[in-house]
Amino acid sequence: MATIKDVARVAKVSVGTVSRVLNGSSKISPESYKAVHDAARQLGYRRNAVAQALVSKTSKMFGVLVSDVGVPFFGEMVKGIEEVARQKGLHLLICNGYHDATEEKNMIEYLLSHRCQSLVVHSKGLSDEELIQYSREIPGMIVINRYIDAIKERCVFLNNHQGMHIAVSRLLDSHNGVAYIGSSEDIQDATDRYLGYQKALEDRSIEFNEQWVVHCEPVAEAGYKAIKQLAEQGELPSSIVTYNDALASGVLDYLHGEGIKIPEQVSVVGFDDIELARYLYPKLTTVRYPIREMAEFAANLSIQLLEDATPSVSDEELEFVPKLIERNSAVI
Amino acid sequence: MATIKDVARVAKVSVGTVSRVLNGSSKISPESYKAVHDAARQLGYRRNAVAQALVSKTSKMFGVLVSDVGVPFFGEMVKGIEEVARQKGLHLLICNGYHDATEEKNMIEYLLSHRCQSLVVHSKGLSDEELIQYSREIPGMIVINRYIDAIKERCVFLNNHQGMHIAVSRLLDSHNGVAYIGSSEDIQDATDRYLGYQKALEDRSIEFNEQWVVHCEPVAEAGYKAIKQLAEQGELPSSIVTYNDALASGVLDYLHGEGIKIPEQVSVVGFDDIELARYLYPKLTTVRYPIREMAEFAANLSIQLLEDATPSVSDEELEFVPKLIERNSAVI
Repeated sequence: MATIKDVARVAKVSVGTVSRVLNGSSKISPESYKAVHDAARQLGYRRNAVAQALVSKTSKMFGVLVSDVGVPFFGEMVKGIEEVARQKGLHLLICNGYHDATEEKNMIEYLLSHRCQSLVVHSKGLSDEELIQYSREIPGMIVINRYIDAIKERCVFLNNHQGMHIAVSRLLDSHNGVAYIGSSEDIQDATDRYLGYQKALEDRSIEFNEQWVVHCEPVAEAGYKAIKQLAEQGELPSSIVTYNDALASGVLDYLHGEGIKIPEQVSVVGFDDIELARYLYPKLTTVRYPIREMAEFAANLSIQLLEDATPSVSDEELEFVPKLIERNSAVI
Repeated sequence: MATIKDVARVAKVSVGTVSRVLNGSSKISPESYKAVHDAARQLGYRRNAVAQALVSKTSKMFGVLVSDVGVPFFGEMVKGIEEVARQKGLHLLICNGYHDATEEKNMIEYLLSHRCQSLVVHSKGLSDEELIQYSREIPGMIVINRYIDAIKERCVFLNNHQGMHIAVSRLLDSHNGVAYIGSSEDIQDATDRYLGYQKALEDRSIEFNEQWVVHCEPVAEAGYKAIKQLAEQGELPSSIVTYNDALASGVLDYLHGEGIKIPEQVSVVGFDDIELARYLYPKLTTVRYPIREMAEFAANLSIQLLEDATPSVSDEELEFVPKLIERNSAVI
């Protein structure tokens, strides 16, 4: 690849002149200007963003840590960040952490070694303490989808508890009970949603029935098996809520197979509102996780933090509250 | 952020010694080793990947150009590349080109300016000539999802024509005609799939019927409108094939609404086999686009090209042939 020295040689000017021309300096003769641009074009010379990053101690890269960019949920998240970053002339350097503490740590270190100053981190593996430490070191780091009290001004998160509470409460307006298919993952989202379910029952003085609850891997096949298991154990209530839309899709599959009408006989409500929810049959009533908006907000906040260490952002803005999206899979 | 000079100062050794310690040189006294590591830890010193990239003229980044990383198809593609890159200690620098020539060009230049040596490019906007030129300049560049004869050894692509031909031929075994809902996008995929449809009819000496064809934006809502338009125009054949799965999902929606049984009354076959195909009702019979495998292959090829300018790869390996995935939406 051609260097600035090659350009200088071909243009028959000094390296300093090439640098001044390419940096748009005004004190340049028309002859030098033409010679340098002709030589650069002829040689296919490209400015070295690496060298620029070294001098400026910053890169034009916005660092993103996700669990797995191939999962549609994270695709949406990345998309939200990308739209904000692009407007600022930044591009994304994306790393997968796979919910593993060591991987996540390595990836954050990698992003830092590349001098990313803006960072949105989706971490489930690292401890609160580790994330607090990183936040202190990195002024432009935002934690998404997690709440840590000590750095709450850096956390953009969803109130999962309230989201599930809303769904279950609405179902209880029309049903005398709600079965729950939860996630067996050891993450806060799983705990919070389950607690929201329990709290909604409690608020209506409805007894919690352990027979109506299964926890499993949050994927479609597991949802199918979970509802099958519940159904085989005995009578079920007329409504079911699931930890996420993938589980709900498995539940719909089972009910179709059994000839059970949705929502006439059984109502099903999911969580997340991933794209596929709109394509299920019947179209899924679900709790919307506004990950795209949250990601945009996080990216903007990260950029603001670099410009102003104390941007005015309220607790309410950082906490997103999910909404129930009513479609055709539930009588509510 | 602490520099190597800071580490040297705190460790009370020279910068050269710090460098030797951190590079794992063996000619280091135990005292210096300890002093440098203690100082580095105390100061939170991080090696500068930017500086390393400048010296080595390469970065540890694998460049990827997609149309839009938020679209699940590209999420799958990125995932395939990431798995290969990770094994080589590379991380992805991802850019969106939005099928626009200027954006695509800017993004490739950006990836090059960051000294990405491995590159997988999904370009629909740039001309063949421009991609040929870039391929000459960039030894590790692979073009995915596009065939350009002059650089065919760098092109990993799908035989779209054959994929659609397979689907339509199979439908014609059981049906006397096939309606086609195509894409109005001005890209080769759209042309090739449509030609595959026409060729399959021709091979069976079935007359092409323009009344059974609509081209529209390749999204679900447009699929709904397209099948509605066809149905209102007059009698339809008992099978329908669509340019992609999103269109097929719109077709299913319309048929459900009209109380038409799938596949008993009408068979529907999609194309791509995106994740959602398995969640539609009935589960969608579709032509599988193995984008994940293709992306892995492309990433491996890119890395091989950097190690060996002429890796042994056959034309057959570069061309992927889609398969029909039989599920429940079609009688075939």
